[in-house]
Amino acid sequence: MSADRVVPAHTLFKRLLLGRPLATDAAGTQRLRKLVALPVFSSDAISSTGYGTEVILGVLVPVAGMAALNYVVPISLIVMVVLAILVISYRQTIFAYPSGGGSYIVSRENLGQTPSLVAGASLLVDYTLNVAVSIAAGTAAITSAIVALRGHEVPLAIGLLVLVTVANLRGLRESATLFSVPVYLYVTMMMVLIAVGLIRLALGGLHPLPVDHAQLLHFTDGQAVLGGVTVFAFLKAFSSGAVALSGVEAISNGVPNFRPPETRNAATTLMWTGLLLGGIFFGVAILAVQLKPTLSTEQTILSTMGAAVFGSRSNPLYGILQASTAAILCLSANTSFADFPRLSSIIARDGFMPHQLARRGDRLVFSNGIIALSVAAGVLLVAFSANVNDLVPLFAVGLFTAFTLSQTGMVVHHRRIREPHWRRNAVINGAGATATGLVLVVILFSKFTSGAWVPTIVIPLLVLTFVRVKHHYADVARAEAVAPGQKTSPLPSTILVMVGAVNVGTMRALSFAKSLRPDRVLAVNVALEDGDADRVRAAWAEQKLDVPLEVLESPYRDLTAPILTYIDGLVAGHPGMVITVVIPELVVGRWWEQILHSHSAFALKTRLHYRPDTIVVSVPIHVE
Amino acid sequence: MSADRVVPAHTLFKRLLLGRPLATDAAGTQRLRKLVALPVFSSDAISSTGYGTEVILGVLVPVAGMAALNYVVPISLIVMVVLAILVISYRQTIFAYPSGGGSYIVSRENLGQTPSLVAGASLLVDYTLNVAVSIAAGTAAITSAIVALRGHEVPLAIGLLVLVTVANLRGLRESATLFSVPVYLYVTMMMVLIAVGLIRLALGGLHPLPVDHAQLLHFTDGQAVLGGVTVFAFLKAFSSGAVALSGVEAISNGVPNFRPPETRNAATTLMWTGLLLGGIFFGVAILAVQLKPTLSTEQTILSTMGAAVFGSRSNPLYGILQASTAAILCLSANTSFADFPRLSSIIARDGFMPHQLARRGDRLVFSNGIIALSVAAGVLLVAFSANVNDLVPLFAVGLFTAFTLSQTGMVVHHRRIREPHWRRNAVINGAGATATGLVLVVILFSKFTSGAWVPTIVIPLLVLTFVRVKHHYADVARAEAVAPGQKTSPLPSTILVMVGAVNVGTMRALSFAKSLRPDRVLAVNVALEDGDADRVRAAWAEQKLDVPLEVLESPYRDLTAPILTYIDGLVAGHPGMVITVVIPELVVGRWWEQILHSHSAFALKTRLHYRPDTIVVSVPIHVE
Repeated sequence: MSADRVVPAHTLFKRLLLGRPLATDAAGTQRLRKLVALPVFSSDAISSTGYGTEVILGVLVPVAGMAALNYVVPISLIVMVVLAILVISYRQTIFAYPSGGGSYIVSRENLGQTPSLVAGASLLVDYTLNVAVSIAAGTAAITSAIVALRGHEVPLAIGLLVLVTVANLRGLRESATLFSVPVYLYVTMMMVLIAVGLIRLALGGLHPLPVDHAQLLHFTDGQAVLGGVTVFAFLKAFSSGAVALSGVEAISNGVPNFRPPETRNAATTLMWTGLLLGGIFFGVAILAVQLKPTLSTEQTILSTMGAAVFGSRSNPLYGILQASTAAILCLSANTSFADFPRLSSIIARDGFMPHQLARRGDRLVFSNGIIALSVAAGVLLVAFSANVNDLVPLFAVGLFTAFTLSQTGMVVHHRRIREPHWRRNAVINGAGATATGLVLVVILFSKFTSGAWVPTIVIPLLVLTFVRVKHHYADVARAEAVAPGQKTSPLPSTILVMVGAVNVGTMRALSFAKSLRPDRVLAVNVALEDGDADRVRAAWAEQKLDVPLEVLESPYRDLTAPILTYIDGLVAGHPGMVITVVIPELVVGRWWEQILHSHSAFALKTRLHYRPDTIVVSVPIHVE
Repeated sequence: MSADRVVPAHTLFKRLLLGRPLATDAAGTQRLRKLVALPVFSSDAISSTGYGTEVILGVLVPVAGMAALNYVVPISLIVMVVLAILVISYRQTIFAYPSGGGSYIVSRENLGQTPSLVAGASLLVDYTLNVAVSIAAGTAAITSAIVALRGHEVPLAIGLLVLVTVANLRGLRESATLFSVPVYLYVTMMMVLIAVGLIRLALGGLHPLPVDHAQLLHFTDGQAVLGGVTVFAFLKAFSSGAVALSGVEAISNGVPNFRPPETRNAATTLMWTGLLLGGIFFGVAILAVQLKPTLSTEQTILSTMGAAVFGSRSNPLYGILQASTAAILCLSANTSFADFPRLSSIIARDGFMPHQLARRGDRLVFSNGIIALSVAAGVLLVAFSANVNDLVPLFAVGLFTAFTLSQTGMVVHHRRIREPHWRRNAVINGAGATATGLVLVVILFSKFTSGAWVPTIVIPLLVLTFVRVKHHYADVARAEAVAPGQKTSPLPSTILVMVGAVNVGTMRALSFAKSLRPDRVLAVNVALEDGDADRVRAAWAEQKLDVPLEVLESPYRDLTAPILTYIDGLVAGHPGMVITVVIPELVVGRWWEQILHSHSAFALKTRLHYRPDTIVVSVPIHVE
C-alpha cells in the first residue's frame, strides 16, 4: 500500500489557492523582459506619485493654509534632484554588481559586517513600511471614489494585503503578467490627467477650485491667521516628499531577475523608472498649484483634481483614474513582496536570519519571507488604522540609511577595483552618498518626534538580533562538528517499553526492543486508575512475557511525570547513560477516530524530546 | 541533570488558574454534606423560579395581552403537580440505585442498550441547554438592573460562562463553598419579595402596576382585540413552565457525592429542593397575578416586581434581589457542570463516548467533559444571542424523554427485584412515567415548529454516534488482541538513517542504527538545493563512513515526498516489510532558538506516523 494515497485536506486547499508545485529547474524561465520587469520592480517608485503631493500638503497646510500650495513645486524640484543623483549613482551599482547589488551586498563587500547588517535591517524595515503605506494609500484611493466604503478602511486594507500576499505566494511571473496592465494604465491616466487639466486651465475651460473652508478649518485647527512656513516645516514637508524615492533600490537588488543582458536591461529600466516618476510627480505638482485643491479628510487631492479635470465624479475617466491608482499602489506593495523575501534569503544564507527564509517554497518563491512581510505589514496597518499620514513619518529613515551606506560602499569599491574611469565613478557615488546622507539627517531632525524614532530603535534591535542568530548558528555548528576520522559504534542503552495493556502494540514494541543490543529491556506501565496495576500485572503473567514489568504509581493521574522521575532514578549516578523509550502508538484510519484515542503518547514524546540522552522510538499499530 | 527543571509556561498558567494537582486519594474528601450539597445539586431546579413565570407569560401575552396573568396560577399548579409526582418517583430511584441512578443507568439496567443511549443523549443535550438558558437568564437579571450593560448580552454571557467553567475545572468542593451563600441568599430574597409584596398589597400600601402600553403593544404586535387563550397556547405555555423541572434528575445522578448515609441524605435534599422550588414558583405566580407587571423587553418580570415591592430600583434590597438571581442562575449552570461530565464519564466507561471523558483531570474533576460542555453551551449562547425565550423551546424535550425512560425503567426494576411493597412502588413509578410521558407529548406537539425539532434531530444523531464509537472501540480491541501464549521475537527491518550533513547527530543516529540487528542499514539524504548532493557525498567519503549513502533528488524542494517514494520502492514486492527510520533531531535550549531550525524533521515524523509498518526513531542532539 502506498502512503501517497493520503492527501491531507490542507494540502488540497493550498494547491487550489497557490497552484501546483514548480520544479527547481523551472527557476530559469521566471526571468522577466523589460516591459514586464518595469511594473514589477518600479511600481513602488512610480506609485508614490499617487500620494506624494498629498503628504507634502499634509505637513504644510496645518501651518500655511492654502499658501501651502506655493511650496509644492520647490519641494518637488528638490526631490527630483535627489532622484536624478540616485538614478545615476545606482546605474553604477547595477553594472558593478550584476548578480544583485542591493545595499546589503554592496555594504558587505566594501564596508564590513556591521554596516551591511545596518543596511539590511534598514531595508527590511522600509520594505515593510512601504507595504503598509502603499496599501493604506490604495485604500484611500478606493474610499475617495466609493463613499459607502468610508469608515471601513482597516478591513479593506487587510483584504488588499491578503490579495497581494496570495498573488506573491503563487509566484513572480504570474504576478507580473497579472499586474502589467494597471501600471501602464496608471501612467497613461496620470499623463492624461495632467495634460487635460493644464490644457483646460490654459484655454479657460477650467478654473481654480473654490476653497473648501470647512475642510481647511479642520486641518488648520481653526487658526484664523497662519504664519509663514518655517525652515523646519519646509524640511519636514520635504522629508515626507522624499518617501517617493523608495523603489530606486529595488531594481539594483533584482538584477538577476532580468532577461540577459541583465545589467543593461536593468539600467535601462531604472532610467525609465526615474523619468516616469519624475515626470508624473512634477506634473501633479504643477497641476495642483494651478487648480488649488483643498486638502480633505474625505478624499485624496488626486481624487479632487480628477473629478474637476474630468468634469465630475461620475465621468468614467475619473473612475478609471481612481481604480488604476488603487491598483498601482497595491503593486507598489508587490515590489516589496519581491524584494523583502529576496533580501531575507541573502541575509539568511549569511547566517544572520533563520535558515528557513533562505529556502524556496514549492512555487519557487521564498514563501516564509512573503508570509513574514505580510504579517508585519498587517500589524502596522491595524496599529495605524491604515492612515497614510500617520505611517509616513516612520518611513524613509531606513531607506536613506540604506542609500547612504550603499553609495559609500560604492566609493570604496571604486577605490579598491580601480576600473577605467574609477575616479569619476567614485565622485558620482560620493555625491550620491553625500546627498542621501543629508536627506537622512533632515528626516531624522524634522520627523524624530513625529515617528522617525521608531525605526531608530527598531533597526539597531534588528541588527542585534542578526548577531545573536549568527552566534547561535555558530554555537550549534561547533557542537555538531565531528572530528575527522571519528567512527560510529553501537550505542548501548537501557530500553524502556511503554505498556498500557497487553496487546498487539505492546508485542510489537517488545519485538523491536529485542532486536536492539541493549544493556537491558524493561517494560513500564503507569497505573492511572485504581485497579490498573493489578490488571496489567495479571495479563503480563498470563502471557508469560520474559521482560520484567515495572508498574509506576501516578497519584495525580498523569502519565509523563512518573516516567520522567523513573528515568531520573535509572540514570542517577550514570552520567551520559542513554535511555531508549519505545512507545507503541495506535493509528486509526480516520481523523475523527483518532480523537477517540488518548493523546498521552504524543504528550510523552514531546516531553521526552527535551530530555538529554533520550531516544524515542514510535512503533505505530495501524487499525483500519 | 533532571528534566524536571523545565516547567513549560502553560503549566504555570494552568496552576495559577486551576490550583495544584489533587491526588487520587483525595477523592473521598470531596463528599458533600446536605447543606452544601443543596446549592450544588439543586440550584438548577430552584433557579428556574427566576425565569419560569417570565417564559409562561412570554407565550401567553402575545395571544391574550394582560389577560395572560389569569393563566399563570393554573399553569403553575399543573407544573407543581408534575413536580410532586417526580419527587416521589425519584426518591425511589435514589434508594434503588445508591451508587448514582440517573436515567442512563436505570434505563441500561432495566430497558436495554438503545433506551439507555436515548436517555444519555437526552440528558447531555438538556444539560447543555440548561447551561445556555441559565446563563442567558442570569445575563437578563444583570441587564435588568444595570442599564448600561444592555446590548452587550452576548459578551456578558460568555464572560459568565468562562467564570463558571474555570470554577468547575478547579474542583467541586471549592465550587460548593464558593456558591452556597448566593443560593441561600436567593431563597431568602424571594421569600422576602413574596411576603413583603403580598402583605403590602393586602394592607393597601402597594397597588397593581399600571399597564405599560408601549411594551404591551410590542408583544401583541399592535392587535387591538386579542382572542382568548386556545388549548394549544395553554399547552405551549405549560411546556415553557415545565422547564422549571429540570434539575430533579441531578440529585439522583449525584448520590455518591453525598456524605454517608448517601441515599437518605440525597432523598432529604431532593424533598427540600421540591419544597423550595414549588413554594417560590407558586409564590411568584400569586404575586404576579396581584401586582400585574407588564411583560417588557427592557427588564424581567422579577425585576419589575422587585422594584415595585421594594419601592424603587435604587433600594438596596432590589439590588440584592437582582444580584442573587443572577448568581443562582450561574449556579444552575453549575449543576449541569457537575452532572454532564459525570454522565459523560459513565457513558464513556461503557465505550460509547471517547475514553478521555472517563478520566479525571489533575484537580480530580472530569476536565474534558467540563470543557466539552462549556464549548457547546458557548456555541448556543452565541447562536441564539443569549435570548432566553428563543432557547427555551429547545429545552425540556431531552429532559422529559429521560424522565419517562427512567421511571419506566423503575417499573421494570420493581417487577424484576420484587422487593417489599414492590407493587405499590411500581404503581408510583408507573404514574411518574405516565405523567412525564404525557408532558413530553405535550411539549413535542406544542413546540415542535418553534424549536423542539432541534433536539428531536440531535438526540438520535448522538445515539448513532454512540453506537459508531462503540463499534470503533470494538474493532480496535479485536485488532489489538493477542493470542494467548504468543511470544515476542526480534523484529528484523531495513534501517534508514536520515542524513542532512555529517555531524554529531548523524554519527549518533548511525551508532543507534548499528546497535539494532537489521537486515541492512542505509543512510539517506534528500538534496534540496543545487550542490547539496555533492557536498554530502564528499563529507561522507572524507569521514570514511561504512554505511552506504543514498542521495535522493527533490525537484520540488520537499523533504517528505522523496523519502516516501523511496520507501515505497524498497518495500515493493515485500509486503509487511518493516522500515525503521532514524531521524537525528537538533534540540536547543530556548524556544526562540528552536524557531531558527527547520521543522522538516517534525513534518517527516508526522507523515511517517501514518505509514503502515514504519517505525520512527528520534535521536535528539541537545545543544545548550
